[in-house]
Parts: sequence; C-alpha cells; structure tokens
Amino acid sequence: MLTRIDHIGIACFDLDATVEFYRATYGFEVHHTEVNEEQGVREAMLRINTTDDGGASYLQLLEPVREDCAVAKWLAKNGEGVHHIAFGTPDVAADAADIGDKGVRVLYDSPRTGSMGSQITFLHPKDCHGVLTELVTSAPARPAAPPEH
Amino acid sequence: MLTRIDHIGIACFDLDATVEFYRATYGFEVHHTEVNEEQGVREAMLRINTTDDGGASYLQLLEPVREDCAVAKWLAKNGEGVHHIAFGTPDVAADAADIGDKGVRVLYDSPRTGSMGSQITFLHPKDCHGVLTELVTSAPARPAAPPEH
Repeated sequence: MLTRIDHIGIACFDLDATVEFYRATYGFEVHHTEVNEEQGVREAMLRINTTDDGGASYLQLLEPVREDCAVAKWLAKNGEGVHHIAFGTPDVAADAADIGDKGVRVLYDSPRTGSMGSQITFLHPKDCHGVLTELVTSAPARPAAPPEH
Repeated sequence: MLTRIDHIGIACFDLDATVEFYRATYGFEVHHTEVNEEQGVREAMLRINTTDDGGASYLQLLEPVREDCAVAKWLAKNGEGVHHIAFGTPDVAADAADIGDKGVRVLYDSPRTGSMGSQITFLHPKDCHGVLTELVTSAPARPAAPPEH
C-alpha cells in the first residue's frame, strides 16, 4: 500500500549548482548525498517535510556520473527537469507484484538499492500516463547509538 | 517559508481515464474536483498523505478544457507527464516577493486562485533548473458546521 509521496526525482547537469539553487532560493538543506553506481548517478536528498506514515518527502537531485545511464540519456533528450516521482510503501516487493499483476510493466525483477539504503523499483512510464514512477521502501531505522560515557 | 511538497501536477489527455488508472493501480481516491476557468483546466486532487505543517500532499491531475491554455500547449509538445511541482507556504505573496528579489521570475504580479480556494503563483522553469514550480497557500480551514438539531 502506497502511503506517501516519498520524493520527486529531478535530473540536473550540475548537482552542486542545483543544490545551491534550492538552498539559496528556498532555504532547503541537503539531508544526504551519495553516489549510486548501479543507477549511474550522484544525488542529493533535500528533506522537505515529514509525513503521517512516519516517513518523509524529499526532493532528490540527480546528476549522471556516466553517459550510458538512464538519467544521462533522459537529460540529453529532455534537458533538466522532473525525471520521476516516487511513492513510499512498507513493502515494495509486494506492491510491485500486485501492480505488475494489473498489467503495469515493472522494470526490475526484484527490488534494487536506492537512496539511503532503501529498496526500490520503477514502473514503465508508458503504462503510467507518461510518468516514470518509483516505489520505495525505506531502510529500517537504525537503533539509537548508546549514550557516550 | 516553504514547508511541504503540496502537490505534483500531472498533465493528461483524459482526466477520467487517468483518475481511474490511479484508483485501480494504487488505490488513490479523488479528494476534490473542479474546473479552473482561468487556468483552462479540469482537475482532480488525490490526497496521498498529510504533512507535519498541518497540510497535505496531493497528486493534481490536469486535463485542459481549451486549446489555448498553458497545459494544452505543454501536452501538445511533451505528451502526458509531470507538468509542475508545488510547495506549500503560509504566505505565498511574501515568498514570491522574496524569491523574485533573488532574480527568479515570478509569473503572476499577484497570487491567483488555485485548487480548493488556494492562492498560487508560479516561478519560471528556466530560472528553476527546468522545473515549473508553483507556490501555494491553502485556503483557511472552514469553521466546523454547527451541530444539527
């Protein structure tokens, strides 16, 4: 069951410049950065609000790190802009199976690793009225660190 | 101050078919529908989650009702997909003035009426790394109706 807008994925040519735009224009700060080698992107997550399912909604800024990745090809065709949207769910594999049974093409046979250790898959945009749609299950919260003595 | 992802605006050719896709595929239900004559669109708001600022995040599905509106022109060029993103703020006029002072083009001289009686403006996508960006202040909550006797 999809319980939140998890993030909006925005493709950009220059991650540092785009992060600075969002900071200077709106005051949004970087919550997390990483390189996802499998996806071929360097990314920054800007946390915008928390949600009533215990999660949060982010902007995910994406810069390709190699020319043959999906985001690089998308940028070459479309220029900068919204690349995909993502919904959060407690069980991405179950939702992907359910949605696949309805005839929507699911792009991965099993979930892969997304931002911040999440598990993700994508739905084909041609089956979703033109919207590349991601499903995300966040990584389990880490137990709090023991107090320092 | 922008405090939430208010909505993702998705342009479609057939609102009824797109609403049905989101209902059948994900279980998302229509929270509100209206025609905005000024914007030239018929729209459905699907409420996805509530947010920690007291608001909510929606998908806004948009079908043009006349050929000369911005959404119709965008669809003719791009096909169906994500048309814009929107951030919620308690004071759209103040944020628009502040952001305009930073050199980002604000598309309206003063806020106009958006979904559900909200006040809205837009920022030029060329000044926002390719993302048409809306700012939204929700209409004040209506007082509860008096109890029936």
